Amino acid sequence: MGKTMTWSIRGVNELHFAIKEKTYLDLLNDSFWFYYRAFENTIMNIARHQTNERTSKVVVHNNVAYLCGQVAADADTDITEQTQTMLAKVDELLISVGTDSTRMLSATIYLKSMDDFAAMNLVWNAWVPTGHAPARACVQAAMARSTLLVEISVTAAC
Amino acid sequence: MGKTMTWSIRGVNELHFAIKEKTYLDLLNDSFWFYYRAFENTIMNIARHQTNERTSKVVVHNNVAYLCGQVAADADTDITEQTQTMLAKVDELLISVGTDSTRMLSATIYLKSMDDFAAMNLVWNAWVPTGHAPARACVQAAMARSTLLVEISVTAAC
Amino acid sequence: MGKTMTWSIRGVNELHFAIKEKTYLDLLNDSFWFYYRAFENTIMNIARHQTNERTSKVVVHNNVAYLCGQVAADADTDITEQTQTMLAKVDELLISVGTDSTRMLSATIYLKSMDDFAAMNLVWNAWVPTGHAPARACVQAAMARSTLLVEISVTAAC
Repeated sequence: MGKTMTWSIRGVNELHFAIKEKTYLDLLNDSFWFYYRAFENTIMNIARHQTNERTSKVVVHNNVAYLCGQVAADADTDITEQTQTMLAKVDELLISVGTDSTRMLSATIYLKSMDDFAAMNLVWNAWVPTGHAPARACVQAAMARSTLLVEISVTAAC
Repeated sequence: MGKTMTWSIRGVNELHFAIKEKTYLDLLNDSFWFYYRAFENTIMNIARHQTNERTSKVVVHNNVAYLCGQVAADADTDITEQTQTMLAKVDELLISVGTDSTRMLSATIYLKSMDDFAAMNLVWNAWVPTGHAPARACVQAAMARSTLLVEISVTAAC
Repeated sequence: MGKTMTWSIRGVNELHFAIKEKTYLDLLNDSFWFYYRAFENTIMNIARHQTNERTSKVVVHNNVAYLCGQVAADADTDITEQTQTMLAKVDELLISVGTDSTRMLSATIYLKSMDDFAAMNLVWNAWVPTGHAPARACVQAAMARSTLLVEISVTAAC
């Protein structure tokens, strides 16, 4: 979100400076390219973060951040601690691209067993900023390692 | 979709009014802020609908609506009726944010058992507006309650 | 991505031509409608490709392509060949809407059995263009036909 503000403010200053030096026709041309660059930045560019051969931890495009599936920091803990450390990693990734959990758009939660639904929800509900819950879905599916009990895919505005 | 049209038309009238009163330099400045506000409205703002501590039923950002996972109105019915009432809830949520099923972008369907694939598809195919099918995926996964046979996550343009 | 460039370049030419013929007020009005049409094209329009009664193979909106779930070309092959032919179909669909695998945003992979995780990853890692991995999640879920071992949902910038 900060990024959009940044180019806008800088853009205003650039236009104000230009106004002293140029003709109206030049200004219209500059104005076109200013908006074109804004479109290009927000719509065409893709920013990848923490990329390896398999995944990028975050991909940002058109002011939306896509997080790769997050799991617990320690797969040998119970559902409560796995959910807590998983969501701490979501926080960290969101902050790393200039957004936070108040700007989540969607979340898909995979649980190894629906027996853990209530315990997971206790941690989730406490973690979601009041009034800022994303659109959520939760289904039962096993993860890459058999000890993992929960995984989450998140998208957020940024 | 209506919203974008609304600010545009109002914007034209505001610009026309302004033209009588202001200098060209003022107009260029106004024009800049007009486009900036348009960007801000469509790209930076997030609208959450029917939000509780766990989920928002719909989140709208950048002209895309994200629906939370929808399930049947009554989990004690068969796959046909569960699919029908689930899709009726999707319709209701889409309409609540000014869009409809002709503008769906993607749909992920979770079935408790693939034995229900054909019966679910019969209802789905009849419900999708001709020529407007979203990009769909369907996999087998159990839901939060054991009697639920089907769940859907939808995104739509709005 | 090509499309955005196209209207921009054409737009510049149209503005330059207009400058010879029109007043500044006309130019400001034209400029408004030029940007409005750009918004309309990228934000409001939806392009559906290879649409049938159940799904569109690709839906494009706001410079994002949503692919329907892709599976192997031949479900009677092993996980290596199923992953290869599935990703070849992803390539084909991305190219059909003017983008490619270097511009993927997110990928959700469903595996019938996590026993196939390592073999699937070998093919995946070799296929992903270096430095361009999407945000990926991978969970265990069965597909519509029992012989299918892997399915993928992809979004990409275009």
